[in-house]
Amino acid sequence: MPRILRIAAAQMGPIQKSDSRAETLARILSLFDQAADRGAQLVVFPELALTTFFPRWLLQGDALDAYYEKAMPNPQVQPLFDRARDRSVGFYLGYAEMTPEGRRFNTAITVGPDGAVLGKYRKVHLPGSVEPKEGQTYQQLEKRYFEYGDFGFQAFDGADGWHAPRMGMLICNDRRWPEGWRAYGLQGVELMLMGYNSAAYDPNGGTTEGAELRTFHSSLVAQANAYMNATWAVSVAKAGNEDGSGLIGGSCIIDPDGQIVAQAQSLEDEVVVADCDLDACVQGKTKMFDFAAHRRPQHYRRLVDQVGVRHDRT
Amino acid sequence: MPRILRIAAAQMGPIQKSDSRAETLARILSLFDQAADRGAQLVVFPELALTTFFPRWLLQGDALDAYYEKAMPNPQVQPLFDRARDRSVGFYLGYAEMTPEGRRFNTAITVGPDGAVLGKYRKVHLPGSVEPKEGQTYQQLEKRYFEYGDFGFQAFDGADGWHAPRMGMLICNDRRWPEGWRAYGLQGVELMLMGYNSAAYDPNGGTTEGAELRTFHSSLVAQANAYMNATWAVSVAKAGNEDGSGLIGGSCIIDPDGQIVAQAQSLEDEVVVADCDLDACVQGKTKMFDFAAHRRPQHYRRLVDQVGVRHDRT
Repeated sequence: MPRILRIAAAQMGPIQKSDSRAETLARILSLFDQAADRGAQLVVFPELALTTFFPRWLLQGDALDAYYEKAMPNPQVQPLFDRARDRSVGFYLGYAEMTPEGRRFNTAITVGPDGAVLGKYRKVHLPGSVEPKEGQTYQQLEKRYFEYGDFGFQAFDGADGWHAPRMGMLICNDRRWPEGWRAYGLQGVELMLMGYNSAAYDPNGGTTEGAELRTFHSSLVAQANAYMNATWAVSVAKAGNEDGSGLIGGSCIIDPDGQIVAQAQSLEDEVVVADCDLDACVQGKTKMFDFAAHRRPQHYRRLVDQVGVRHDRT
Repeated sequence: MPRILRIAAAQMGPIQKSDSRAETLARILSLFDQAADRGAQLVVFPELALTTFFPRWLLQGDALDAYYEKAMPNPQVQPLFDRARDRSVGFYLGYAEMTPEGRRFNTAITVGPDGAVLGKYRKVHLPGSVEPKEGQTYQQLEKRYFEYGDFGFQAFDGADGWHAPRMGMLICNDRRWPEGWRAYGLQGVELMLMGYNSAAYDPNGGTTEGAELRTFHSSLVAQANAYMNATWAVSVAKAGNEDGSGLIGGSCIIDPDGQIVAQAQSLEDEVVVADCDLDACVQGKTKMFDFAAHRRPQHYRRLVDQVGVRHDRT
């Protein structure tokens, strides 16, 4: 008996600096309803889905703080939680978190069909820099505006109505780092959710990577890491021209063979849906990627014993 | 000034059980000369390039031992080493190794343009089973016929005439395991060489994966791991119908962006060549995949602390 979960990738077009929270939430609710109308049981939104990608600018004080959610839910976002419960459809949502103690994280939550939070993740692999780079039109200041995620990669159980998949979350740049995927894979994850805001140009000043190559990279890492961990993966963009800065699209749903089964075609608000049989993970997990039978951790020590490149022998 | 190394992927068609070593070595020398005539400085041959893929049968005694090289070089393979020195062209070659103490490994060497061995690798990720599986036409008995490689993943320096690339080797199934790639990536590897014999059917009895899907998997993991470690990669098949059992082709040369720049089109003996600028690794290694700036090993403990899947919290 297959364990089929119908999932929607709810790609968002750009959110301009001038857009109000109310306008953005109305778009999110519209995408949510489109997905629910198509029978989706889980809707995946992008990273930082409530605001523009503000780390592209050097900001401070209230101008910066305005981008963070001081609680989740909060009155502005509560209608999404209410809608989830009303329609019995869950969601993944990325947002900038400020804790009561003033700590800041790039965060995502997965909310179940009862409107309750099932899991929370704080981005581990923050790209960019702490200090602004001179002469750049756009910065990538995630290392300035967020602390490194302190939860690590903790899998969690999805809702019973979803066939209780073992689940994990990543955010944007995390999807390029196989260590995070493997940490989840070693917990038996069957479904990975991730949102992203990926520049169509190189945010650190390179000129050799265009939007097409960067969209290829985005799909490539999600496909290969899904395959190598025998898991479904849903990877969702905020896309298009946001405040003059281009973001790639390419939101997709990927099966445990690494094949794209549904993909957004635009750089706008767009919902794509797929029926995901969670038991399609079984072949990979029990054969090619039977970790207990085939992994050799005694040869993986470098992965934890060093951070950067070293040329010495071990 | 670019550091360009011209590399050949020398895919081999099948080697039948009935083929003599002399016949096989003649094919290898012919491929080597084709590559050298096209200006290649390094020729990459498959895994177990001197014999049929014998782990598909249950064998013992002399019938098994005949497949192993008791020394490297040895009189039968010496002509390849001589040709390398004569033409100042190096090679990667996979073979079954039997040590003087009778230990058996699935091994590969890289030989420099002077005919001397630059590096040696013993396969870490052995697939298959120790015991034959009942009712299977073909077995996958690598775990029976080889010990797990005991060298780990030790990078080495290529020849000066190759612009001294930092190099690593993998063998077949290793290419599906990101830990091995990362162990090399953490040593600054710029060029990964790997040979494979990958069944076009599932050797452990699955029926859902055909040759097209398995060829896709083969390219996918090589492309993504090359990109995620900002390295060139050369992945070379023994292909075609070998003793009644199908092997995938798809040999390819991959750039540090994960893009295939040359790929074999047949399932036969076939040489493809590419000019590989080793400095194309610099952008990835210094920006997106600047490991020292971006890796977070404190969250990777599971990768070495456990072998198989565990559902507990850490």
